[in-house]
Amino acid sequence: MAPALELLPKIESVPTKVLSAISNGVSGGNGLKLESVEKHQRVMGVFRAFIADQCQQYGEGHAGSPMGMAAIGIALYKYVMKYSPKNCNYFNRDRFVLSNGHACLWQYLFMHLIGVESMTLDQLKSYHSANLDSLCPGHPEIEIEGVEVTTGPLGQGVANAVGLAMATKNLAATYNKPGHEVVNNMTWCLVGDACLQEGVGLEALSLAGHWKLNNLCVIFDNNNVTCDGTADVANTEDINMKMRATGFNVVDVYNGDTDVAAIVDALIAARSGDKPTFLNIRTVIGFGAAKAGTADVHGAALGVDDVANVKKLFGLDPNQYFHIPQDVYDFFSDIPGRGEALEASWKVDLAKYREAEPALAAEFDRRVAGKLPEDWTQYITPKEAHPTASTATRKSAGVLTNAFASNINSFLVGTADLTPSVNVTYKNKVDFQSPELRTSCGLDGDYSGRYIHYGIREHAMCAISNGLSAFNKGTFIPMTSTYFVFHLYAAAAIRMAALQGLQQIHIATHDSIGVGENGPTHQPIAVAALWRAMPNLLFIRPCDAEETAAAYIAALQATDTPTVIALSRQGLTQYPQYSSRNGVLKGAYVFTEAEGDDFDVTLIGVGGEMCYAMQTRDLLLKNYGIRARVISFPCTRLFEQQSREYKQSVLKPSAGKPTVVIEAYPANGWERYADASVSMHSFGKSLPSKDTYAHFGFSAESIAPKVKDLVEEVRRDGIGIFRGDFRDLNGTLRIGLEH
Amino acid sequence: MAPALELLPKIESVPTKVLSAISNGVSGGNGLKLESVEKHQRVMGVFRAFIADQCQQYGEGHAGSPMGMAAIGIALYKYVMKYSPKNCNYFNRDRFVLSNGHACLWQYLFMHLIGVESMTLDQLKSYHSANLDSLCPGHPEIEIEGVEVTTGPLGQGVANAVGLAMATKNLAATYNKPGHEVVNNMTWCLVGDACLQEGVGLEALSLAGHWKLNNLCVIFDNNNVTCDGTADVANTEDINMKMRATGFNVVDVYNGDTDVAAIVDALIAARSGDKPTFLNIRTVIGFGAAKAGTADVHGAALGVDDVANVKKLFGLDPNQYFHIPQDVYDFFSDIPGRGEALEASWKVDLAKYREAEPALAAEFDRRVAGKLPEDWTQYITPKEAHPTASTATRKSAGVLTNAFASNINSFLVGTADLTPSVNVTYKNKVDFQSPELRTSCGLDGDYSGRYIHYGIREHAMCAISNGLSAFNKGTFIPMTSTYFVFHLYAAAAIRMAALQGLQQIHIATHDSIGVGENGPTHQPIAVAALWRAMPNLLFIRPCDAEETAAAYIAALQATDTPTVIALSRQGLTQYPQYSSRNGVLKGAYVFTEAEGDDFDVTLIGVGGEMCYAMQTRDLLLKNYGIRARVISFPCTRLFEQQSREYKQSVLKPSAGKPTVVIEAYPANGWERYADASVSMHSFGKSLPSKDTYAHFGFSAESIAPKVKDLVEEVRRDGIGIFRGDFRDLNGTLRIGLEH
Repeated sequence: MAPALELLPKIESVPTKVLSAISNGVSGGNGLKLESVEKHQRVMGVFRAFIADQCQQYGEGHAGSPMGMAAIGIALYKYVMKYSPKNCNYFNRDRFVLSNGHACLWQYLFMHLIGVESMTLDQLKSYHSANLDSLCPGHPEIEIEGVEVTTGPLGQGVANAVGLAMATKNLAATYNKPGHEVVNNMTWCLVGDACLQEGVGLEALSLAGHWKLNNLCVIFDNNNVTCDGTADVANTEDINMKMRATGFNVVDVYNGDTDVAAIVDALIAARSGDKPTFLNIRTVIGFGAAKAGTADVHGAALGVDDVANVKKLFGLDPNQYFHIPQDVYDFFSDIPGRGEALEASWKVDLAKYREAEPALAAEFDRRVAGKLPEDWTQYITPKEAHPTASTATRKSAGVLTNAFASNINSFLVGTADLTPSVNVTYKNKVDFQSPELRTSCGLDGDYSGRYIHYGIREHAMCAISNGLSAFNKGTFIPMTSTYFVFHLYAAAAIRMAALQGLQQIHIATHDSIGVGENGPTHQPIAVAALWRAMPNLLFIRPCDAEETAAAYIAALQATDTPTVIALSRQGLTQYPQYSSRNGVLKGAYVFTEAEGDDFDVTLIGVGGEMCYAMQTRDLLLKNYGIRARVISFPCTRLFEQQSREYKQSVLKPSAGKPTVVIEAYPANGWERYADASVSMHSFGKSLPSKDTYAHFGFSAESIAPKVKDLVEEVRRDGIGIFRGDFRDLNGTLRIGLEH
Repeated sequence: MAPALELLPKIESVPTKVLSAISNGVSGGNGLKLESVEKHQRVMGVFRAFIADQCQQYGEGHAGSPMGMAAIGIALYKYVMKYSPKNCNYFNRDRFVLSNGHACLWQYLFMHLIGVESMTLDQLKSYHSANLDSLCPGHPEIEIEGVEVTTGPLGQGVANAVGLAMATKNLAATYNKPGHEVVNNMTWCLVGDACLQEGVGLEALSLAGHWKLNNLCVIFDNNNVTCDGTADVANTEDINMKMRATGFNVVDVYNGDTDVAAIVDALIAARSGDKPTFLNIRTVIGFGAAKAGTADVHGAALGVDDVANVKKLFGLDPNQYFHIPQDVYDFFSDIPGRGEALEASWKVDLAKYREAEPALAAEFDRRVAGKLPEDWTQYITPKEAHPTASTATRKSAGVLTNAFASNINSFLVGTADLTPSVNVTYKNKVDFQSPELRTSCGLDGDYSGRYIHYGIREHAMCAISNGLSAFNKGTFIPMTSTYFVFHLYAAAAIRMAALQGLQQIHIATHDSIGVGENGPTHQPIAVAALWRAMPNLLFIRPCDAEETAAAYIAALQATDTPTVIALSRQGLTQYPQYSSRNGVLKGAYVFTEAEGDDFDVTLIGVGGEMCYAMQTRDLLLKNYGIRARVISFPCTRLFEQQSREYKQSVLKPSAGKPTVVIEAYPANGWERYADASVSMHSFGKSLPSKDTYAHFGFSAESIAPKVKDLVEEVRRDGIGIFRGDFRDLNGTLRIGLEH
């Protein structure tokens, strides 16, 4: 079909790239009845001009990608994607992820055009404004109607999309029955160059290919421009070959600026692929702008003159701003009704399903409502059932994971290739795998499986888990597992879970220097400080089986918060007479008071180092007659939620006695509660676990004399002197290396 | 050539996989004269038995991969790699990286066999022991003679190897002249499945392909087994196709267990490739063990019986332990002499080079010695040259980066695709690129270039920088640049720099909530706490141009320590009358005392929030007559190095007056120095920069009344009450989301 060049006003500044794209014309078409090419050009012109206005009003923002992706948006929102703008949370909707989140204006504007009511014209104008109630922040946020996941940090979104597609596959395999498809949505994910360069994206794509997630379509806005200029400056790989090697079907679209029909064709093909689809769409960034096709239009406004030229180029009045003519609204006017019909039809199907499969449907309904079975607490190990012999908390946690995962199918349990070490397998577990791999690779498992082998891909594990969580609040509770130190690989994704309020349980075993022989590379030192400082995240270090049980309770009660549970590799002394699940839920509690009525010092014991606090307590009394009380402090954030009265009852600050925290992490943050620390001031060392502890001064024999000195100093000088003078009892912070 | 099956004793337990590998025989050969097949079998048998003994003595450790990679080691260490075991630091040596670091026994044992003197038989037995002076820790550590980089966290090593290969390319392009090749070494990197799954590995490989680093050979120990079982469980991609798409030449070796000649052929071919080489070598993990080819031999000892069987299988006495017969030593005995000759020849070449190119050679010698020009301080902006108007610290830093990078070629300056934002370009910069890309893609640059476009790959940027640093101490000072929040993508690599004592400068712009409109995804909150807790890392937040200059001085003085400099996007008030470079070098200093002789409160100002401290100081005096002194606190670690006297002179704890820290990060850690904070308790918000600050309570108008209340409370109740009762003046830590 011939290009609609005559629609365009003849002005001199039409950029060559734009002219060339338009003159390449609109190709293809399929069974679906599309509107005319002229209409598409018209709508895209208005769309692009509006984006230019949005960035121009405050002289900044990301105009280029949204302008370049106009045709992709029309293909998706007008023709292919199944959703309901009147109920953006319609359960069986297609999920859409804008992994190139800086292109958010594109999504906001389409949401307005398709009839999402909260996205008003005024809201669109609030982008980059000081409006506290803006629904158009600088990157899409999950709290906004119609946004599935918060994106912006690149590569995260595409991994989220893999999680969303997995969620569909798992629910479909669990609940769909012949004649009853209650879940069958697609996941569409728009990516730029960055998401295909970032490691987290590559890890996730590799898994999508492995799992043959044919309900996933990754749409590459291939404009070949990044902030630094042409993308070639840092990337010259053959992306199509790479994606094929990774297990994707690859479809090319060569004129993604105007060829709506070709994009529609490709998207429709993706719906029926045997593998996930990678759609390589060539576009021109900032299509219509004078500097289209260059990095100059990536993260900047176009300037007043060019905005005017853009409007002229597309036949619009340069003196009209934020203008959406009625015919453009009309173009999208069928969508709300179509969406409502879609949802209504699903509800009819669901009603039939409830009749045919009442038990399954009841469970399905509960999970759609985002609830666990009401009696979930029965799977928490009762206090009397804990072992009394020395037991690693990773083992105690394993008992709980087993109970929950084998009994409640909301739990999707994954591991970054540490099945033998992290104890997260469960009775009758089934692997999440493509059933096709049974024949080709002899692998067990299918899509109803809930044990996920993520491979050695910690970052994707956590970012995919965000997608699983975001599919529908509470339908899944993803669990991840790896060594604690490897949380540094996944930190950006776990942060996104905290930012989005996604409930998850992250099992972090091999915490502290207790890891032993694997040495300093594997001994996490600073990671605890990161999670304690991270907003909306529970970081819990239980000291024994009972505290571990409490950690699971806290994690399951925290429905808007991810929880990291740090667990020991080494066996830990059990304290059935002292440890308390209610205490853990308050963050910290008195583990044991001192012998007699008074005390000389308070010791804070944490996780794997509780045993050193308790042994020091005994030795202080025996050797020096010093009376120590002990506080267990598994979670600083939970403690901060408590009343001032409770906090003071635990810490007893007015007694004027010193408090010493004993933890094999840096003391940072403990200064809030303690006057001194036995803590880590360097990286660890490759030694057997107990020897590592001893080497760094973690033994009652080493600690007790230092605490005695401190107690005597306080008796002599009072406690006041310690303010601003925190004591590192076993070392000081250093720069440079020791060796 | 026929297999040497007759060499093997006929015992019943020979695993099928082993028999099959052996019967596939030894193929190929090349110009190099190889020892006999029988000799190789003999050496490999002894090698594998020794590994089995090492793991068996303490009943743990990683035996499988080292046993599987025996033939690869012989090909590398005996035949192909150029190095000198008598001087492991010989400058032009081939670099070798064991990216699958858990296979460290393989490297330790080869180091012993080739004659590295420190690696004694007793040392080999110290693996997993309590010996504090062991040179055989659980993963290879850079401090050990012959180990180029510390590895273990998977994917890091292969990225380091890319950095090592870049280092060679850059030095060669800078210093080699026709007839004078003073640098031309290869980089060999051994990887397992994990390094090809981890995102950081994939990012780095993509760059190696892009840069056409034909001096890099990645050797894939393709045993298809990971901790979770067959690698297929999480990975079924076509790795050869993927590596070709990524820009590598791919060579297959099908019998990597015994076919030394084929491996030698492939390695030699890699030396003359036009691209980096990916060598896909099929091996059997735990070759020789009963459970060879399974995950059971990955991270465990084989058991006494199986160790005996391994020895019998290879014709060795099962009752001899840690036994290396003389003929096996003899096999490697030519290597030390060969290495010395290699180095001697290089020294002759270097002497000729010094005559031919005296100026270049002098610079080269200085860089080999790991030194900067002695007058490097001249490139620090003098105090009087700073702007007085409001200036972003990212701009002030840019002036320094420009001065250093344009004048001293030790600086390799990279960015993760944020050239327009991070201000790290420099005068006459040349991009690091393959010259071939000039013709194929029209890209500027060549291998002498020192501006590195890493693409959107923060993790690889930092892990590659570790390789650049590790090439030879001080020869390069890599700089990286990205937004501070994206340090969470790269955290695992920056940690490895701190662990290894590698000097680097990490430019982290867009720090704090001052980022503004990009919103909570881009506003780093918890990252500062991570870097402040990380051992051997300087985290510096300068408040103006003068403090930024000091941060560069600190970073350049810290020759065994990486430095992160956190810089503002927004303009910051300059304080020429208060800010002090010597103060910064002490970590914290008195910015200004209060008006008059006494004071009521101390305010700690940090980085981009210093202005709020200073404005609050003025408002406290004006509105309430409260006298505030202000401390600037850019670096906690440097402050901790100072004497107790200096610390007290800054903090004045004995005055009994409250101290309030004002920083738009969580307060965690500041409790050491302050009684109260104005800090962040949640994620940020998408608003213009100033509005973001105001929204979270960062304005003198909001802070001053709260400080006044605190001062009055202390006047009434004394300061003691605050111990264990830190005040969050503008909020509390929360779980769950606000909205």
